[in-house]
Amino acid sequence: MIIEYKPIGVVHSPFSVQEGTPIQPSRSNGARATVEVFPEFVEGLSDLDGFSHIILLCHLHRSTGWRPKVVPFLDTEPRGLFATRAPCRPNPIGLSVVTLLAVEGNVLSVENIDLLDGIPVLDIKPFVGEFDDRSNVRTG
Amino acid sequence: MIIEYKPIGVVHSPFSVQEGTPIQPSRSNGARATVEVFPEFVEGLSDLDGFSHIILLCHLHRSTGWRPKVVPFLDTEPRGLFATRAPCRPNPIGLSVVTLLAVEGNVLSVENIDLLDGIPVLDIKPFVGEFDDRSNVRTG
Repeated sequence: MIIEYKPIGVVHSPFSVQEGTPIQPSRSNGARATVEVFPEFVEGLSDLDGFSHIILLCHLHRSTGWRPKVVPFLDTEPRGLFATRAPCRPNPIGLSVVTLLAVEGNVLSVENIDLLDGIPVLDIKPFVGEFDDRSNVRTG
Repeated sequence: MIIEYKPIGVVHSPFSVQEGTPIQPSRSNGARATVEVFPEFVEGLSDLDGFSHIILLCHLHRSTGWRPKVVPFLDTEPRGLFATRAPCRPNPIGLSVVTLLAVEGNVLSVENIDLLDGIPVLDIKPFVGEFDDRSNVRTG
Protein backbone atom coordinates (compact mmCIF):
# COMPACT_ATOMS: atom_id res chain seq x y z
CA MET A 1 0.00 0.00 0.00
CA ILE A 2 1.47 3.31 -1.13
CA ILE A 3 0.01 6.53 0.24
CA GLU A 4 0.55 9.66 -1.85
CA TYR A 5 0.51 13.16 -0.42
CA LYS A 6 1.15 16.56 -1.96
CA PRO A 7 2.44 19.58 -0.04
CA ILE A 8 -0.15 22.24 0.85
CA GLY A 9 2.53 24.84 1.50
CA VAL A 10 6.13 25.55 2.43
CA VAL A 11 7.97 26.94 5.46
CA HIS A 12 10.18 30.01 5.11
CA SER A 13 12.47 30.00 8.13
CA PRO A 14 15.84 31.46 9.14
CA PHE A 15 17.29 27.96 9.37
CA SER A 16 18.85 26.81 6.13
CA VAL A 17 21.11 24.11 7.55
CA GLN A 18 20.51 21.47 10.21
CA GLU A 19 23.31 22.84 12.36
CA GLY A 20 21.87 25.60 14.50
CA THR A 21 18.27 24.60 13.87
CA PRO A 22 16.45 24.09 17.17
CA ILE A 23 15.65 20.45 17.82
CA GLN A 24 12.12 21.33 18.92
CA PRO A 25 9.94 24.48 18.89
CA SER A 26 10.16 24.73 22.69
CA ARG A 27 13.93 25.26 22.39
CA SER A 28 13.81 27.78 19.56
CA ASN A 29 13.89 30.95 21.72
CA GLY A 30 11.10 32.61 19.77
CA ALA A 31 12.50 32.19 16.26
CA ARG A 32 9.99 33.54 13.72
CA ALA A 33 9.07 32.15 10.36
CA THR A 34 6.27 32.14 7.84
CA VAL A 35 4.22 29.35 6.35
CA GLU A 36 3.20 30.00 2.75
CA VAL A 37 0.02 28.10 1.97
CA PHE A 38 -0.54 27.39 -1.71
CA PRO A 39 -3.44 29.42 -3.21
CA GLU A 40 -5.80 26.49 -3.76
CA PHE A 41 -5.91 25.84 0.00
CA VAL A 42 -6.38 29.41 1.26
CA GLU A 43 -10.12 29.06 1.85
CA GLY A 44 -9.32 26.36 4.40
CA LEU A 45 -7.45 28.90 6.56
CA SER A 46 -10.64 30.72 7.63
CA ASP A 47 -11.08 30.88 11.40
CA LEU A 48 -7.54 29.64 12.06
CA ASP A 49 -6.70 33.07 13.53
CA GLY A 50 -8.87 32.20 16.53
CA PHE A 51 -6.19 29.80 17.73
CA SER A 52 -3.04 30.78 19.59
CA HIS A 53 -1.13 27.64 18.65
CA ILE A 54 -1.18 25.38 15.63
CA ILE A 55 0.27 22.01 14.75
CA LEU A 56 2.35 21.79 11.60
CA LEU A 57 2.87 18.38 10.02
CA CYS A 58 5.78 18.63 7.60
CA HIS A 59 7.61 16.25 5.30
CA LEU A 60 11.19 16.08 6.61
CA HIS A 61 12.60 16.20 3.10
CA ARG A 62 16.25 16.06 4.16
CA SER A 63 15.77 12.76 5.98
CA THR A 64 17.91 10.12 4.33
CA GLY A 65 16.17 6.86 5.17
CA TRP A 66 15.16 5.27 8.41
CA ARG A 67 17.32 3.81 11.17
CA PRO A 68 15.82 1.55 13.85
CA LYS A 69 18.02 3.01 16.62
CA VAL A 70 19.38 6.48 17.21
CA VAL A 71 21.17 8.32 20.00
CA PRO A 72 18.79 11.16 20.94
CA PHE A 73 19.86 14.71 21.72
CA LEU A 74 21.15 14.93 25.34
CA ASP A 75 21.34 11.14 25.59
CA THR A 76 24.28 8.74 25.31
CA GLU A 77 22.62 5.42 24.48
CA PRO A 78 20.95 4.27 21.26
CA ARG A 79 17.17 4.24 21.62
CA GLY A 80 14.42 2.81 19.48
CA LEU A 81 13.55 5.30 16.74
CA PHE A 82 9.87 5.49 17.72
CA ALA A 83 10.90 6.45 21.27
CA THR A 84 12.59 9.55 19.80
CA ARG A 85 11.67 12.52 17.64
CA ALA A 86 14.63 11.99 15.30
CA PRO A 87 13.95 12.68 11.59
CA CYS A 88 15.26 9.34 10.27
CA ARG A 89 11.78 7.76 10.37
CA PRO A 90 10.20 5.27 7.94
CA ASN A 91 7.71 8.03 7.06
CA PRO A 92 9.59 11.24 7.88
CA ILE A 93 6.70 13.38 9.15
CA GLY A 94 7.68 16.15 11.55
CA LEU A 95 5.22 17.43 14.16
CA SER A 96 5.72 20.95 15.49
CA VAL A 97 3.48 22.94 17.82
CA VAL A 98 4.10 26.62 17.05
CA THR A 99 2.64 29.93 18.18
CA LEU A 100 0.41 31.55 15.54
CA LEU A 101 1.03 35.30 15.39
CA ALA A 102 -1.02 36.29 12.34
CA VAL A 103 -2.84 35.03 9.26
CA GLU A 104 -2.61 37.36 6.26
CA GLY A 105 -4.00 35.96 3.03
CA ASN A 106 -2.09 32.75 2.37
CA VAL A 107 0.74 33.51 4.81
CA LEU A 108 0.88 32.43 8.45
CA SER A 109 3.36 34.19 10.73
CA VAL A 110 4.54 31.81 13.41
CA GLU A 111 6.91 31.80 16.34
CA ASN A 112 8.94 29.10 18.07
CA ILE A 113 9.69 27.20 14.94
CA ASP A 114 12.21 24.37 14.63
CA LEU A 115 11.88 23.73 10.91
CA LEU A 116 14.33 24.10 8.08
CA ASP A 117 13.71 26.67 5.36
CA GLY A 118 11.88 25.15 2.40
CA ILE A 119 10.33 22.24 4.24
CA PRO A 120 7.06 21.05 2.63
CA VAL A 121 3.96 21.37 4.80
CA LEU A 122 1.49 18.47 4.72
CA ASP A 123 -1.17 19.62 7.16
CA ILE A 124 -2.10 22.40 9.56
CA LYS A 125 -4.27 21.63 12.58
CA PRO A 126 -5.48 23.81 15.42
CA PHE A 127 -3.85 22.96 18.73
CA VAL A 128 -6.66 22.21 21.17
CA GLY A 129 -5.74 21.67 24.81
CA GLU A 130 -8.54 19.21 25.43
CA PHE A 131 -7.32 17.02 22.58
CA ASP A 132 -3.55 17.39 22.71
CA ASP A 133 -2.53 18.07 26.30
CA ARG A 134 -2.01 15.30 28.83
CA SER A 135 -1.36 15.55 32.54
CA ASN A 136 0.69 12.98 34.47
CA VAL A 137 2.97 12.44 31.54
CA ARG A 138 5.88 10.05 32.03
CA THR A 139 8.82 10.25 29.64
CA GLY A 140 11.29 7.40 29.19
CA MET B 1 5.98 17.05 -5.80
CA ILE B 2 4.48 13.72 -4.76
CA ILE B 3 5.43 12.31 -1.37
CA GLU B 4 5.08 8.56 -0.93
CA TYR B 5 4.60 6.86 2.41
CA LYS B 6 4.01 3.25 3.41
CA PRO B 7 2.15 2.15 6.55
CA ILE B 8 4.32 0.93 9.43
CA GLY B 9 1.40 -0.80 11.10
CA VAL B 10 -2.35 -0.98 11.56
CA VAL B 11 -4.83 -0.16 14.33
CA HIS B 12 -7.14 -2.84 15.68
CA SER B 13 -9.96 -1.03 17.44
CA PRO B 14 -13.54 -1.72 18.49
CA PHE B 15 -14.78 0.97 16.08
CA SER B 16 -15.61 -0.42 12.67
CA VAL B 17 -17.90 2.38 11.51
CA GLN B 18 -17.63 6.14 11.86
CA GLU B 19 -20.89 6.32 13.79
CA GLY B 20 -20.09 5.78 17.46
CA THR B 21 -16.37 6.36 17.01
CA PRO B 22 -15.17 9.03 19.44
CA ILE B 23 -14.24 12.26 17.68
CA GLN B 24 -11.06 12.58 19.73
CA PRO B 25 -9.15 10.37 22.18
CA SER B 26 -10.11 12.64 25.09
CA ARG B 27 -13.78 11.76 24.49
CA SER B 28 -13.31 8.03 24.11
CA ASN B 29 -14.03 7.03 27.74
CA GLY B 30 -11.04 4.74 27.92
CA ALA B 31 -11.70 2.64 24.82
CA ARG B 32 -8.86 0.14 24.32
CA ALA B 33 -7.22 -0.94 21.14
CA THR B 34 -3.98 -2.37 19.80
CA VAL B 35 -1.49 -1.12 17.29
CA GLU B 36 0.13 -3.91 15.27
CA VAL B 37 3.54 -2.75 14.06
CA PHE B 38 4.84 -4.60 11.01
CA PRO B 39 7.82 -6.89 11.80
CA GLU B 40 10.46 -4.87 9.93
CA PHE B 41 9.89 -1.92 12.28
CA VAL B 42 9.86 -3.75 15.63
CA GLU B 43 13.44 -2.81 16.55
CA GLY B 44 12.36 0.83 16.48
CA LEU B 45 9.92 0.20 19.36
CA SER B 46 12.72 -0.23 21.94
CA ASP B 47 12.43 2.16 24.88
CA LEU B 48 8.92 3.28 23.88
CA ASP B 49 7.58 1.60 27.04
CA GLY B 50 9.20 4.39 29.06
CA PHE B 51 6.51 6.78 27.87
CA SER B 52 2.99 7.04 29.29
CA HIS B 53 1.52 8.64 26.16
CA ILE B 54 2.30 8.34 22.49
CA ILE B 55 1.30 10.20 19.35
CA LEU B 56 -0.12 8.14 16.51
CA LEU B 57 -0.08 9.62 13.03
CA CYS B 58 -2.48 7.64 10.85
CA HIS B 59 -3.68 7.78 7.28
CA LEU B 60 -7.41 8.52 7.45
CA HIS B 61 -8.14 6.04 4.69
CA ARG B 62 -11.91 6.56 4.68
CA SER B 63 -11.53 10.26 3.94
CA THR B 64 -13.14 11.02 0.58
CA GLY B 65 -11.38 14.14 -0.62
CA TRP B 66 -10.85 17.53 0.92
CA ARG B 67 -13.39 20.27 1.55
CA PRO B 68 -12.27 23.85 2.31
CA LYS B 69 -15.05 24.41 4.87
CA VAL B 70 -16.75 22.08 7.32
CA VAL B 71 -19.17 22.41 10.21
CA PRO B 72 -17.23 21.07 13.21
CA PHE B 73 -18.69 18.85 15.90
CA LEU B 74 -20.65 20.96 18.44
CA ASP B 75 -20.62 23.96 16.10
CA THR B 76 -23.28 25.35 13.77
CA GLU B 77 -21.25 27.42 11.29
CA PRO B 78 -18.91 26.28 8.52
CA ARG B 79 -15.27 26.81 9.48
CA GLY B 80 -12.06 26.71 7.52
CA LEU B 81 -10.86 23.08 7.32
CA PHE B 82 -7.45 23.86 8.86
CA ALA B 83 -9.21 25.39 11.88
CA THR B 84 -10.83 21.99 12.50
CA ARG B 85 -9.73 18.40 13.05
CA ALA B 86 -12.15 17.04 10.44
CA PRO B 87 -10.82 14.13 8.31
CA CYS B 88 -11.61 15.69 4.89
CA ARG B 89 -8.10 17.19 4.60
CA PRO B 90 -5.91 17.57 1.50
CA ASN B 91 -3.51 15.11 3.15
CA PRO B 92 -5.73 13.11 5.50
CA ILE B 93 -3.31 12.54 8.37
CA GLY B 94 -4.91 11.96 11.76
CA LEU B 95 -3.10 12.89 14.97
CA SER B 96 -4.10 11.07 18.16
CA VAL B 97 -2.48 11.28 21.58
CA VAL B 98 -3.20 7.98 23.34
CA THR B 99 -2.24 6.32 26.60
CA LEU B 100 0.33 3.54 26.17
CA LEU B 101 -0.52 0.58 28.39
CA ALA B 102 2.01 -2.01 27.21
CA VAL B 103 4.45 -2.97 24.50
CA GLU B 104 4.63 -6.71 23.78
CA GLY B 105 6.69 -7.65 20.77
CA ASN B 106 5.19 -5.82 17.81
CA VAL B 107 1.90 -5.01 19.56
CA LEU B 108 1.15 -1.82 21.47
CA SER B 109 -1.83 -1.82 23.81
CA VAL B 110 -3.32 1.65 23.99
CA GLU B 111 -6.22 3.41 25.67
CA ASN B 112 -8.35 6.41 24.79
CA ILE B 113 -8.35 5.74 21.11
CA ASP B 114 -10.56 7.49 18.54
CA LEU B 115 -9.46 5.55 15.49
CA LEU B 116 -11.35 3.25 13.17
CA ASP B 117 -10.41 -0.43 13.00
CA GLY B 118 -7.95 -1.10 10.19
CA ILE B 119 -6.57 2.41 9.92
CA PRO B 120 -2.98 2.46 8.58
CA VAL B 121 -0.36 3.88 10.96
CA LEU B 122 2.28 6.18 9.47
CA ASP B 123 4.33 7.11 12.51
CA ILE B 124 4.59 6.67 16.26
CA LYS B 125 6.19 9.38 18.39
CA PRO B 126 6.69 9.70 22.11
CA PHE B 127 4.51 12.40 23.66
CA VAL B 128 6.85 14.75 25.49
CA GLY B 129 5.28 17.49 27.59
CA GLU B 130 8.09 19.95 26.96
CA PHE B 131 7.59 19.62 23.21
CA ASP B 132 3.86 19.15 22.85
CA ASP B 133 2.12 20.94 25.73
CA ARG B 134 1.34 24.63 25.65
CA SER B 135 -0.01 26.82 28.43
CA ASN B 136 -2.22 29.87 27.77
CA VAL B 137 -3.82 28.17 24.83
CA ARG B 138 -6.60 30.09 23.08
CA THR B 139 -9.01 28.14 20.89
CA GLY B 140 -11.14 29.80 18.19
